[in-house]
Formats: sequence, structure tokens, C-alpha cells
Amino acid sequence: MVKREMTRKFLEDAFCGESKAHMKYSIYAEDAEAQGKKNLARLWRAIAYAEFVHARNHFKALGYLGAVDANLEDSAAGEHFEIEEMYPVYKNASEFQEEKEAIRSAHFALEAEKIHEKMYNDAHEYLKNNDDLEDKKIFICEICGYTTFDTVPDKCPVCGAPAEKFKEF
Amino acid sequence: MVKREMTRKFLEDAFCGESKAHMKYSIYAEDAEAQGKKNLARLWRAIAYAEFVHARNHFKALGYLGAVDANLEDSAAGEHFEIEEMYPVYKNASEFQEEKEAIRSAHFALEAEKIHEKMYNDAHEYLKNNDDLEDKKIFICEICGYTTFDTVPDKCPVCGAPAEKFKEF
Ligand SMILES: [Fe+2]
Ligand SMILES: [Fe+2]
Ligand SMILES: [Fe+2]
Ligand SMILES: [Fe+2]
Ligand SMILES: [Fe+2]
Ligand SMILES: [Fe+2]
Repeated sequence: MVKREMTRKFLEDAFCGESKAHMKYSIYAEDAEAQGKKNLARLWRAIAYAEFVHARNHFKALGYLGAVDANLEDSAAGEHFEIEEMYPVYKNASEFQEEKEAIRSAHFALEAEKIHEKMYNDAHEYLKNNDDLEDKKIFICEICGYTTFDTVPDKCPVCGAPAEKFKEF
Repeated sequence: MVKREMTRKFLEDAFCGESKAHMKYSIYAEDAEAQGKKNLARLWRAIAYAEFVHARNHFKALGYLGAVDANLEDSAAGEHFEIEEMYPVYKNASEFQEEKEAIRSAHFALEAEKIHEKMYNDAHEYLKNNDDLEDKKIFICEICGYTTFDTVPDKCPVCGAPAEKFKEF
């Protein structure tokens, strides 16, 4: 694990850069697929995976990959920050500046993060007495990220998208 | 597209936060899979996808999803910055502070980014006269992110990993 502060700072920044590159390439890949450019999409997906490898190497060098319970705590804490601090403030600022697309984007995220925090906390609790979670289906709304177990709603309660817009995991 | 500067700034930060959350959850999912916790891994993968949806919404609200050629230019420019500025400086700093894991992690990334920039530039050139890239296999080293077309090397030229450690796309 890396010990010196400046090297840690740099690795943190590199983790951020790799995470954003991975995300952009995944978005570009999806867009290329929608345009029928399969091989170009595959190039972006492959390179997105290479950036995942880089980010994972930095993350491990930083000593951030913990035991499963620590990883669940970290996940819940990240969601908690987004629910209590980040998204309410950004949504409020977007409203103040009357930026409709940003209000929508922040609202969608905020609603999903509330569910995510609960799911991570429940998982943490359940795993105190079990080796793995129950085998429940998970559905995500492709439009807003709304997250739910077991069955697809007729209509997304957050964005109104129809049942076909849910992706099963 | 969002116009006010402060709302843009906030959305950029939220894009960064979502990208890092997506990355962390993907790393945690892989780790849970390796421990045989399939359902927990699925929860992390599903929520990672929800964060992808949030990041994509922010990215589109920022007006950053362009035409395919603009997306390729943006990809090449990101790699160029990492090759010419970010990784040489961070690698040099890690050497100065004698942080072995960071030197390794920066070196692996730097070598792969050089290949990525060329691949994106070549793709950009090729797509001037074609609708899609050629149907070539792409292989990525799971250890260092080394990226190559067509055939798996016997040994990764960057990290020395054997052929089995390559993932095909
Ligand atoms: Fe990278
Ligand atoms: Fe979340
Ligand atoms: Fe939705
Ligand atoms: Fe999110
Ligand atoms: Fe790259
Ligand atoms: Fe390698």
C-alpha cells in the first residue's frame, strides 16, 4: 500500500481520471452500437475495460479494496453523502439557475441513491448471518436509474418510463 | 444543454462522482464474485449500472455526447494528455518518493495509453471512408491493460502475464 501523501494524492487523481475515461468510453460505445457501428463499439468497450484494469490497480495500490463488509460500508457512505449533501445542493443550485436538464438529472440520481443506501445497509445486515444475499432479481430503469427488487413496475415511479425500459440483473 | 457556468461545474463534479461510484462498485462486484458471493456481486453490478445511467444523464445534459468522429477525437485527446502530462509526472513523483506500487501502476497505464491514442487516431482516419471498423479481435491484459489486435501474445510485453490472462473483445 502506498504511504507517502503526495503519491497518494496523485493516485487518487489518476483513479478519478481512469474512472471518467471508462465511463466516457462506455457511453461512446453504447452510442456507436445504437448507430449500428458494432466494431467501433467493441473498440470502445475493450479500451473501457483496459481503463477499468488501470483504475483497479490504482485502487488496490491505495489500499482501498477491503473485506466485503468494509466495501458495503464504503458503498453506503458514498450514497449517504450524495443523498444528504451533494444532490440536494446541486439540485437546489440548478433550480436557482433555472437549468431544467440539470434539475431532472439531479432529481433522478437523488431518488435512486436513497434506495441504494438502504440496499447496501440491508445487505450489510443480512451478511452478518449469511454467506451471500438471497437470489432476488434486480431491475434498473434505463432512463433514471430507479432500482428495485423482484418485479418490474408497470411504470417507473420516478420518471414514468414503461416496464420495457427496465434492465434485469 | 445546460448553459449557466455554476450548474455546469456542479454537473461535471457529479459526473466525476458517478464515474467513481460506478468504478468502485464494479471492483467490489468482481471481488465478491471471486469469493463466490454471486448475489452480492449482482447487487453491486446492478447498482453500478444505475450509476452509469446517472453519469450518462449528466454527460448528455452537459452536451458532451457528440457525433462519432468528435467522440473519437475526444477519446484520443484524453489519452494524449495522459501520455504527455499526467502519467509521466505521476510516475516521476512516485519514483522520487520511492513508492513501488504506484510506479508499477503508473507504468502499466502509461504503456497502454500510448496504444489507445494510436488506436483512436487510426479509427478516426479509417472511418473517414468507412461506416464501421474492420472486424478484428481485441485482447486486453487483465493485469496491466495492455491492448492489442488479432492475436494474443505468448507473454504480455508490458507486465509479462501469460496468454491466459488476456480477455477477448
Ligand atoms: Fe488508463
Ligand atoms: Fe447510487
Ligand atoms: Fe425511471
Ligand atoms: Fe448515482
Ligand atoms: Fe487509455
Ligand atoms: Fe500485461
